[in-house]
Amino acid sequence: MFELDQDTLVTCAADGIYSAHLSDRWSIGHVPNGGYLLAVVMSALRHALPAPDPLAINAHYLRPGTPGPAEVHVEVVKLGRRFSTAAARLVQGGKESLRVLATYGDLSAMEGPTFADAAPPQLGKPPREAPRREPGGMTIRERFDLELDPATTGFLRGERAEHAEIRGWLRFADGRPHDVHALGLIADAFPPAIFQKVEPGWVPTLELTVHVRARPRSPWLAGVFRTRIAQHGLIEEDGELWDQDGTLVAMSRQLALPPRPI
Amino acid sequence: MFELDQDTLVTCAADGIYSAHLSDRWSIGHVPNGGYLLAVVMSALRHALPAPDPLAINAHYLRPGTPGPAEVHVEVVKLGRRFSTAAARLVQGGKESLRVLATYGDLSAMEGPTFADAAPPQLGKPPREAPRREPGGMTIRERFDLELDPATTGFLRGERAEHAEIRGWLRFADGRPHDVHALGLIADAFPPAIFQKVEPGWVPTLELTVHVRARPRSPWLAGVFRTRIAQHGLIEEDGELWDQDGTLVAMSRQLALPPRPI
Repeated sequence: MFELDQDTLVTCAADGIYSAHLSDRWSIGHVPNGGYLLAVVMSALRHALPAPDPLAINAHYLRPGTPGPAEVHVEVVKLGRRFSTAAARLVQGGKESLRVLATYGDLSAMEGPTFADAAPPQLGKPPREAPRREPGGMTIRERFDLELDPATTGFLRGERAEHAEIRGWLRFADGRPHDVHALGLIADAFPPAIFQKVEPGWVPTLELTVHVRARPRSPWLAGVFRTRIAQHGLIEEDGELWDQDGTLVAMSRQLALPPRPI
Repeated sequence: MFELDQDTLVTCAADGIYSAHLSDRWSIGHVPNGGYLLAVVMSALRHALPAPDPLAINAHYLRPGTPGPAEVHVEVVKLGRRFSTAAARLVQGGKESLRVLATYGDLSAMEGPTFADAAPPQLGKPPREAPRREPGGMTIRERFDLELDPATTGFLRGERAEHAEIRGWLRFADGRPHDVHALGLIADAFPPAIFQKVEPGWVPTLELTVHVRARPRSPWLAGVFRTRIAQHGLIEEDGELWDQDGTLVAMSRQLALPPRPI
């Protein structure tokens, strides 16, 4: 079993209540990454809803999570013919750390007009060898092979760029194939784009929304993340994840606080 | 009292339960506009939460609303020092039409690095006179003065454009000043951008997210809405609302179904 699937295992403890165990393998410092928390919640939603694909997922981050036992409480809001909606809470020690709202459907059963007025980031081919990992206390970095476009890595050398944009290739380090259930995690797994423009640090997410637009089929995903507006102590980060065949598989947007010292 | 404030009045009927009356003045055909439903829910959230500004609001559309009595059920998820989060349900006849998740804060009390790597749409000055209204059975059109950029109105003449983009100026027809509580409505009040590229029709929203980024202060707001990707029977619509002084006041994104015959 792959790392992510081990670390997002849930068991149904009672009607609508799923037991989970938060791993310390997806942390930044000692705090589990927000995308990982979302992946645990989505693991419970996958059990609770009949439709196979998460289409729109919103997560509000209330408190940091902690490695150890957790529960996911799922309320099925609507079971529809085409779409099903659920709310979920991630709870540890009686306190809620994450509230999620999600609508699931079946991408293979839906059709309509098709166009793409956008293109994947120009990255060249993904690497043949596993990329070198940047050192640091982030265990989540060990879970992924991440090959950033060198044009967007100035932040690693203390440089500031004109645009807050980071792009690159990503795959799971243990070879786990991509699927729709991991896209919430991956949308939060790149370094924050604002690091290219503002001193890096801890970037607390208030809210993260992910739209899954296709089932990923390639070994690598191309990601591009941009922050365009910083004001009133808030930033947005817009993300796109593209398959190697040039299909958009997810769009993400989060509202976050600017970086603060870790 | 202005039309929107009349039509989003709520009264607290019990702890966490607010009575409302859905007006027929914000409809497309006979169905209340989704942004209007959200404004009613946000009216209850404004009562239930101490913080003055909605920062991140997600709405999942479950069923069409109907003019007439309604209830908003609010669950306060977290009251924090800086941020407060609530979930809410819009209920009519025992059935839930809208589920909302929202985090509120105080934009006037927050600060951080400030930059804008984006600009308002180039629209020229807003009109001096109220713009001519397009005819049609959409009572919501009578609530706004909407002056679309002529470069994005080909859809009104049955033309198709290269890009699914619509932009223009908007204000309330009755002179209501803009405020943060109306931005969810306004983010859904422009004609769908995809009308510029695909035969217009009814565009059902699955999920709408609005980030409020500043308090609007000008009589008109400049809006720009774009759909870039249509695939698997889903489209996204990204919106920006800008103050006349060039400040971004809101970003929106919705996941919707492509237009179908009304």
